[in-house]
Amino acid sequence: MTQPKKDESKSALVVSAHSADFVWRAGGAIAKHTQAGYAVHIVCLSFGERGESAKLWRKGGNMTEEIVKASRREEAMAAAEILGATVEFFDMGDYPLRADKESLFRLADVYRRVQPHFVLTHSLKDPYNYDHPMATHLAQEARIIAQAEGYKPGETIVGAPPVYCFEPHQPEQCEWKPDVLLDITDVWDKKYQAIQCMAGQEHLWEYYTRVAQQRGVQAKRNVGITSTKNIVYGEGFQSIFPRVTEDLA
Amino acid sequence: MTQPKKDESKSALVVSAHSADFVWRAGGAIAKHTQAGYAVHIVCLSFGERGESAKLWRKGGNMTEEIVKASRREEAMAAAEILGATVEFFDMGDYPLRADKESLFRLADVYRRVQPHFVLTHSLKDPYNYDHPMATHLAQEARIIAQAEGYKPGETIVGAPPVYCFEPHQPEQCEWKPDVLLDITDVWDKKYQAIQCMAGQEHLWEYYTRVAQQRGVQAKRNVGITSTKNIVYGEGFQSIFPRVTEDLA
Amino acid sequence: MTQPKKDESKSALVVSAHSADFVWRAGGAIAKHTQAGYAVHIVCLSFGERGESAKLWRKGGNMTEEIVKASRREEAMAAAEILGATVEFFDMGDYPLRADKESLFRLADVYRRVQPHFVLTHSLKDPYNYDHPMATHLAQEARIIAQAEGYKPGETIVGAPPVYCFEPHQPEQCEWKPDVLLDITDVWDKKYQAIQCMAGQEHLWEYYTRVAQQRGVQAKRNVGITSTKNIVYGEGFQSIFPRVTEDLA
Amino acid sequence: MTQPKKDESKSALVVSAHSADFVWRAGGAIAKHTQAGYAVHIVCLSFGERGESAKLWRKGGNMTEEIVKASRREEAMAAAEILGATVEFFDMGDYPLRADKESLFRLADVYRRVQPHFVLTHSLKDPYNYDHPMATHLAQEARIIAQAEGYKPGETIVGAPPVYCFEPHQPEQCEWKPDVLLDITDVWDKKYQAIQCMAGQEHLWEYYTRVAQQRGVQAKRNVGITSTKNIVYGEGFQSIFPRVTEDLA
Amino acid sequence: MTQPKKDESKSALVVSAHSADFVWRAGGAIAKHTQAGYAVHIVCLSFGERGESAKLWRKGGNMTEEIVKASRREEAMAAAEILGATVEFFDMGDYPLRADKESLFRLADVYRRVQPHFVLTHSLKDPYNYDHPMATHLAQEARIIAQAEGYKPGETIVGAPPVYCFEPHQPEQCEWKPDVLLDITDVWDKKYQAIQCMAGQEHLWEYYTRVAQQRGVQAKRNVGITSTKNIVYGEGFQSIFPRVTEDLA
Amino acid sequence: MTQPKKDESKSALVVSAHSADFVWRAGGAIAKHTQAGYAVHIVCLSFGERGESAKLWRKGGNMTEEIVKASRREEAMAAAEILGATVEFFDMGDYPLRADKESLFRLADVYRRVQPHFVLTHSLKDPYNYDHPMATHLAQEARIIAQAEGYKPGETIVGAPPVYCFEPHQPEQCEWKPDVLLDITDVWDKKYQAIQCMAGQEHLWEYYTRVAQQRGVQAKRNVGITSTKNIVYGEGFQSIFPRVTEDLA
Repeated sequence: MTQPKKDESKSALVVSAHSADFVWRAGGAIAKHTQAGYAVHIVCLSFGERGESAKLWRKGGNMTEEIVKASRREEAMAAAEILGATVEFFDMGDYPLRADKESLFRLADVYRRVQPHFVLTHSLKDPYNYDHPMATHLAQEARIIAQAEGYKPGETIVGAPPVYCFEPHQPEQCEWKPDVLLDITDVWDKKYQAIQCMAGQEHLWEYYTRVAQQRGVQAKRNVGITSTKNIVYGEGFQSIFPRVTEDLA
Repeated sequence: MTQPKKDESKSALVVSAHSADFVWRAGGAIAKHTQAGYAVHIVCLSFGERGESAKLWRKGGNMTEEIVKASRREEAMAAAEILGATVEFFDMGDYPLRADKESLFRLADVYRRVQPHFVLTHSLKDPYNYDHPMATHLAQEARIIAQAEGYKPGETIVGAPPVYCFEPHQPEQCEWKPDVLLDITDVWDKKYQAIQCMAGQEHLWEYYTRVAQQRGVQAKRNVGITSTKNIVYGEGFQSIFPRVTEDLA
Repeated sequence: MTQPKKDESKSALVVSAHSADFVWRAGGAIAKHTQAGYAVHIVCLSFGERGESAKLWRKGGNMTEEIVKASRREEAMAAAEILGATVEFFDMGDYPLRADKESLFRLADVYRRVQPHFVLTHSLKDPYNYDHPMATHLAQEARIIAQAEGYKPGETIVGAPPVYCFEPHQPEQCEWKPDVLLDITDVWDKKYQAIQCMAGQEHLWEYYTRVAQQRGVQAKRNVGITSTKNIVYGEGFQSIFPRVTEDLA
Repeated sequence: MTQPKKDESKSALVVSAHSADFVWRAGGAIAKHTQAGYAVHIVCLSFGERGESAKLWRKGGNMTEEIVKASRREEAMAAAEILGATVEFFDMGDYPLRADKESLFRLADVYRRVQPHFVLTHSLKDPYNYDHPMATHLAQEARIIAQAEGYKPGETIVGAPPVYCFEPHQPEQCEWKPDVLLDITDVWDKKYQAIQCMAGQEHLWEYYTRVAQQRGVQAKRNVGITSTKNIVYGEGFQSIFPRVTEDLA
Repeated sequence: MTQPKKDESKSALVVSAHSADFVWRAGGAIAKHTQAGYAVHIVCLSFGERGESAKLWRKGGNMTEEIVKASRREEAMAAAEILGATVEFFDMGDYPLRADKESLFRLADVYRRVQPHFVLTHSLKDPYNYDHPMATHLAQEARIIAQAEGYKPGETIVGAPPVYCFEPHQPEQCEWKPDVLLDITDVWDKKYQAIQCMAGQEHLWEYYTRVAQQRGVQAKRNVGITSTKNIVYGEGFQSIFPRVTEDLA
Repeated sequence: MTQPKKDESKSALVVSAHSADFVWRAGGAIAKHTQAGYAVHIVCLSFGERGESAKLWRKGGNMTEEIVKASRREEAMAAAEILGATVEFFDMGDYPLRADKESLFRLADVYRRVQPHFVLTHSLKDPYNYDHPMATHLAQEARIIAQAEGYKPGETIVGAPPVYCFEPHQPEQCEWKPDVLLDITDVWDKKYQAIQCMAGQEHLWEYYTRVAQQRGVQAKRNVGITSTKNIVYGEGFQSIFPRVTEDLA
């Protein structure tokens, strides 16, 4: 785990099934909040060594799972560094990702340690990728454990941080509907830099640039054309829980 | 129409199918925002003279639609006064509520005049009350007209104010799911005072008091038990559009 | 309108978009309840003269809308007779069926007169037939009007009779899901006799016989194979409102 | 397991994730049916020792899981006693609740022994509490096993008892929609007495009293204001299977 | 109406709420099929003169609805020309679009004349634009009328052409889920040329280029990376009816 | 495993929870495609020895699980033979069906070996039968594993074959909606012959004959009554992924 660099009062937790997911799907949100002083911590449940490292495997020769994992770890650490976040690897394996109680408690302990003000993770469904909803399930259940007074009694429990599902690769096929659009225009440079760390998935760079541009146009549209806000890049999120507020505007 | 009393920079619009709906379903939101300086304007599409004035009709004798309407208007004006809002009556008739183009344009003109920062109206469905979704439809379509440059060209168009569906009488039967919980604890007194203006529907006073208490408990739960916020009364809303934000906490 | 033949204490109302719908979709329910002493009244909003009388039109020659309507009326009256129900024709036209306020009030008046203990009508959606959900909408809204004290004050209002959507032609495509299965085994003979009155739609006789058999097997399965009930024919219905009960078995 | 006290012909089974759930969510249904002569048996899969015993844990000092479990068992037994039901504890652990094949077969065996005429359990989803849908899953799968001739061949299999999901804490967030409202007015006293056994969750007493009142008002509304039934308290349930009936009124 | 240029055996119908919708949302499908010999006919229900001509209205001065409409007509005709399709304008007005029986029959007559092998129109919902689902409704109902033997008896009725909803501006907000991805790579040039005819909506050119690229990547993914197909641009569609086939590959 | 008899270029994979499911639900599709030259391979995850062999168990006496399994295997092999397909038995057990990683990889290896052009399996939900969605889950996840370069690197990965859910016993209760109707008229004889191999479930023969007839009528309706296709028997399927096409007719 890379060392945290900040000691501010707010924090966030990102639960990523594979080691690159947090970049494509939440890199803007991470950079935006670290820039605002949040300590953002990322947990990569696996390296995506089997299912999301095609380019490495195609090199053939003496490629091994260990080499792939090391390479993916390096990429993820570089990306997290750029985004200003800390990152931790659970190395649970991918394709399939499976969670036992031990992993669940390990993640609950991260919640207790990080005390996040919000949580980012995958969509609830994804017919193309079963590791993704599995990660969401784990992130949700670990949050519930971390809230329980009876789990490691005496420790400080966590509150009720909002949980957001970040954007899957084919949103409509995953029954994912964004109800929050985050303006990431001022941190786009960082996100694109982080994206470029993912050398093994270059075919996705332009895809996720366009995703950001589309969400930017939509965010612009949803604040209204009379707004003076100049939104160019955005990220979409789907809330799991209702938000509590004092102002509806 | 009663006269507006404020000249602040923010405003809101409430579209109510019948003249009491805005009290039960959004009285807290109205009071909360007028207290914060918003100019809140209410449009009552009908008086609910046929369908929601049973107590008056049961008096029998020489009861007429005109008397019922006058009585309902008075109640609504008193309630709006307490909540600090202005109110306007379209008198379109109820059971059934029907809207022609003229009513649509009339409401679009209200949007243009009020330039609301947010809009409150009914749920998208209600199998018990067909006037309610009809009002939602009208509120939504009028907003779209008011956004169009080609409608009364030269006038100032409206932006993209968020639209919230307030709580129907039997929420689950209306496929209504709150994604926003508003803390109305500090204006509950005003809401309950406004509720008491509805002399003809006394059987609903306690029902909607309990609704506010339940939403309060739920709001408390969704900010987390570790929060120091003391929420006792709440109102739930369902957003129609994604919100655009700079912060996810 | 044929004359009612019964003077029992319970009644039901069937709202049928076209003059044969009530036979295919609710003939069993009608016969079952008239046999049990209910006065069942059917309103046919149209004769289905344009859209559901292909066989007649294909005869060509001097066929006219009047002849088609007369023929369809005769068939429907014969079927209603067999089922033991009364029938009334609104003659509102089909393809498209359109309802103005007058039709709405006319149907509300039927509700007031019949005071139904339950109501049967079409599904909420049907991409193959827009007259069907239109009929459902009318049946639902008329019920609401008939419940209102302020509509024709002084008349006896109706209570809250449950409303059931009967089975459309292609159930899954209409988002129709049966939550009630009615055992019609002991009145199947009558239903099939009524079906045979529909000379113009002979291609549907066997189709709806099979529908009844499939729903029968499903009903049998849902009471459990240990049950001694011998269900062979069934009809499925989808409830719109929750039912109120004293016993969950 | 406390001893059954009745020898009547009808029975019901309640599957409760934690030892208090059956009280808040189904106490009225239990009392209503035991009063009518049903033998109602409750299975508590866990004591809720970790996740639903905050008050006990906050006492601190020498609190242990064993003490919490004993206390919760006592409360549940007292509540069951008041409701007239028998209760059994599987002690599977909570937060998280996990079921292996052994637990599944154990519950299937309870089905075989109880031969329930209906089953009550949790909602299908609950983003706040993953133990709840897990309990539903187990209750459903055990019912299927108990129906299979090939599971412990020679034993009497179970029929097809209806399964009802009782009300979760935040119904709309759990996609829970009641389609059955049970009138519990005449057993409310017992339910409230049972609720008061839950000393550790006093903050929920008034919450669930209001839930009962709201469901009571809704039940009243769904039988119609013309009904002479005086319903004050209710419980809502969502059916999983279609019901088979001979009468639609 | 521009003159049809082809006399091939297959045809298609596009129903567009405003005069530019068919370009953004279905330009590729149109070009693809005209290139394959289909006669594609487009009906523009309105010119989008009020709601989708902001740039023209902002010119101010002596701008009138007639000038806007003429300009929009010209653009649409130029685009249709490029795509190889014929186009017809119903001039029903926009914001709001409203359809009476006359318009419905007029469109049904187009169906009868064109005898389409498939139909393209808008999504079923669109909270940003109420004209769009209204157009879908009209297209669907006109198809049903055109299928009816009793509508203008003696004319050749239409079969059951599949209906596809093309992509709305914010797909997830419209509950639109593509189940068909059309490869438009080889006609992209034409689509982009047609897009450039829409001088008044230049801000959308790049947006819809990116839409095509994203759907292209997704199509590529759904044929599988082992496929040799080189798909770069795509269009997504949502089917309303099941398709009938002889081969599942 | 029976020996494959064909060496054609196209193939399909059927994943069946119990050894008879593939006959009732996909027998037509299998016969249709083997007749067209496809090599169709069936994997039966279990024999349905506990849950779907009631008739055998009721024989009593010395019946054992081994005898039941042998009998079911024989029936399935005979049916597969008639349909022209190969079949393989995983013998994972039923009621409940449970899958570990080993089974998952075993199925992934079948995907790699078969290289299917399409896949048939169960519905996503089934409240009557939890083994069915479990089989779907396994079939889907194994497909994903088989697509991964990092799973057994060096082997030929699979592409993106479409996955279809075949029809469950009570389609509406399983949220199953067919979007594809396959004409199986010319292979009905074979399907019915295969059905007759299922001696232990004779009560289902006529049920699934009627299912085929109903889907046939619906297919006929969806190609349009003007079509000259004579469809009598059909099978319905629900797609999980969007299909990629070059033609919309």
